[in-house]
Amino acid sequence: MTDRPGYFLRSVTARLLALAFFLFCGALQAQPLASWNDGPSKQQIMKFVADVTTQGSSAFVPAEDRIAVFDNDGTLWSEQPLYFQFVFLLDQLKAAAPKHPEWKDNAAFKALVAKDQKALAAMGMKPVLELLAVANTGMTVAQYEQAIRDWLKTARHPRFERPYTDLVYKPMQELLAYLRSNGFKTFIVSGGGVEFMRVWSAQAYGIPPEQVVGSMVEVKYGVVDGRPALTRLPKIAFVDDGPGKPVGIYRAIGRRPIFAFGNSDGDWQMLQWTAAGEGPRFMGLVHHTDATREYAYDRASKIGKLDKAWDDAVAKGWTVVDMKSEWNKIFAFE
Amino acid sequence: MTDRPGYFLRSVTARLLALAFFLFCGALQAQPLASWNDGPSKQQIMKFVADVTTQGSSAFVPAEDRIAVFDNDGTLWSEQPLYFQFVFLLDQLKAAAPKHPEWKDNAAFKALVAKDQKALAAMGMKPVLELLAVANTGMTVAQYEQAIRDWLKTARHPRFERPYTDLVYKPMQELLAYLRSNGFKTFIVSGGGVEFMRVWSAQAYGIPPEQVVGSMVEVKYGVVDGRPALTRLPKIAFVDDGPGKPVGIYRAIGRRPIFAFGNSDGDWQMLQWTAAGEGPRFMGLVHHTDATREYAYDRASKIGKLDKAWDDAVAKGWTVVDMKSEWNKIFAFE
Repeated sequence: MTDRPGYFLRSVTARLLALAFFLFCGALQAQPLASWNDGPSKQQIMKFVADVTTQGSSAFVPAEDRIAVFDNDGTLWSEQPLYFQFVFLLDQLKAAAPKHPEWKDNAAFKALVAKDQKALAAMGMKPVLELLAVANTGMTVAQYEQAIRDWLKTARHPRFERPYTDLVYKPMQELLAYLRSNGFKTFIVSGGGVEFMRVWSAQAYGIPPEQVVGSMVEVKYGVVDGRPALTRLPKIAFVDDGPGKPVGIYRAIGRRPIFAFGNSDGDWQMLQWTAAGEGPRFMGLVHHTDATREYAYDRASKIGKLDKAWDDAVAKGWTVVDMKSEWNKIFAFE
Repeated sequence: MTDRPGYFLRSVTARLLALAFFLFCGALQAQPLASWNDGPSKQQIMKFVADVTTQGSSAFVPAEDRIAVFDNDGTLWSEQPLYFQFVFLLDQLKAAAPKHPEWKDNAAFKALVAKDQKALAAMGMKPVLELLAVANTGMTVAQYEQAIRDWLKTARHPRFERPYTDLVYKPMQELLAYLRSNGFKTFIVSGGGVEFMRVWSAQAYGIPPEQVVGSMVEVKYGVVDGRPALTRLPKIAFVDDGPGKPVGIYRAIGRRPIFAFGNSDGDWQMLQWTAAGEGPRFMGLVHHTDATREYAYDRASKIGKLDKAWDDAVAKGWTVVDMKSEWNKIFAFE
């Protein structure tokens, strides 16, 4: 046989050996979760991953069922002093306002221009998304994606004076990579507009566009000037927030996650839905406790309010990450 | 260095070598597309795959952009004498009919019970999906998935007298595997109900639930008897057929495929949308030409009508598979 390497290489055993070698090399890579201190959250995460990946263990979960979902705003990147998409939206609305004199009496428009967080929080995402849908109606999806890319290039966060995409959390990037290296498939499930994340999620998080679930407007297919195009319509198709998150997961993923991470009451139902499945489960919340390096807020916050989900997490023993004591680094640029 | 294997294994070079070895072993596996004769379709498929996977070639496409979409009914499995989901639906409706006396005047219900293909084809999928939505309202998604599984276990195709899932096309299973072994990510984009396919797509096609795009009913999240549940509502949320297919692709995948396969006019817009992208493209149609081993139908058929998309394919040089002469095997059980 040794003079027939083709046969050897073709054999199933050899392929499995090569795969095992590749996975083994991966397992030896630099210390995972390096930006996490050796606190309770890191221990709980690593124990869960060890449990579900140990063949023969009663908690073992086959790789194809290792679905992990993450909220975006406040969980994977910052959301203060205003959801970053709202800032984009505001810039878009300002540009479109001359064509929409009727907006001067619109409550959502007035709150956005005034950056009235209290009013915005009270009305929720829907009226704001509706305004955006109207502002961008008639744009093709390609034009809209370009507008997002252009905005991200020049917009700067008011406090950190950096591109918004610099404000992704390094510990969460590490967690995503760690899960994937253990056979998990990682998804974003966000109340934000799906297009707003898809243009940068692969680069920032290693999550491709098709694994981003979010709120959506209606789009329409048509042939415009002989060229097929998808055009945005002034109507919300789906709001992926609160009770919408388990629905969004069902629609886009079609099965229940075993691992879910959020940071606010908008993630509560997603965590509940994840927790209610059979077998081992991991539910986590990022608690914003570091006003020096990032922001400190929870029950009283207008943006990213964490109240009922927190009580539930404490009652049920879910993981609550104390950002200040558990993350030795928050942003890569620190 | 040789006495420090850990360092060696940790190095990037070693990991890349292991990966290359693994991919190389895969490339040497048994002849791909074995059920395809050496006709024009097989040659076009293999040339396209060679072009987009050859690093340095002007047609090279990075692996993360190799998105391939497939219609299901008539493209990956049979659809005659009636879409298989319609047969399931009919059984579901018969079971639910005593609770819905109003159906006796419903055109879609009457056509289904009479298996009136002409009437069903004329009214399209929507009224039928609406009936189904009403029939199954109040079921949880878990109960509904179980009903599909139970039905698939006992239902038999009237001509082949086999489980419907035996009627998947072996050449298309091979094509899916061949694309994946060349770095493609494969999706189903079907006019059928998404749940109907998700329970068996992984086993039949190697396509996991989250890569199945289809028509959907509204579902609602709620806590029922202390347990979170998703319940089906009597309302269509999305029809993923015809012009709905590029919309479904945009919603679920978020970028344009480079490879699309269909078999009927319901796939026309999906093929157009795929063709209209930049760079190399592959558009294919399965043409049902084998009445002996499967079915022969095209322009005049009530189910799976192939007319405008065929003309467009011929005009634009898309691949049209002549099932009779190009597939040496259609079903694995032959």
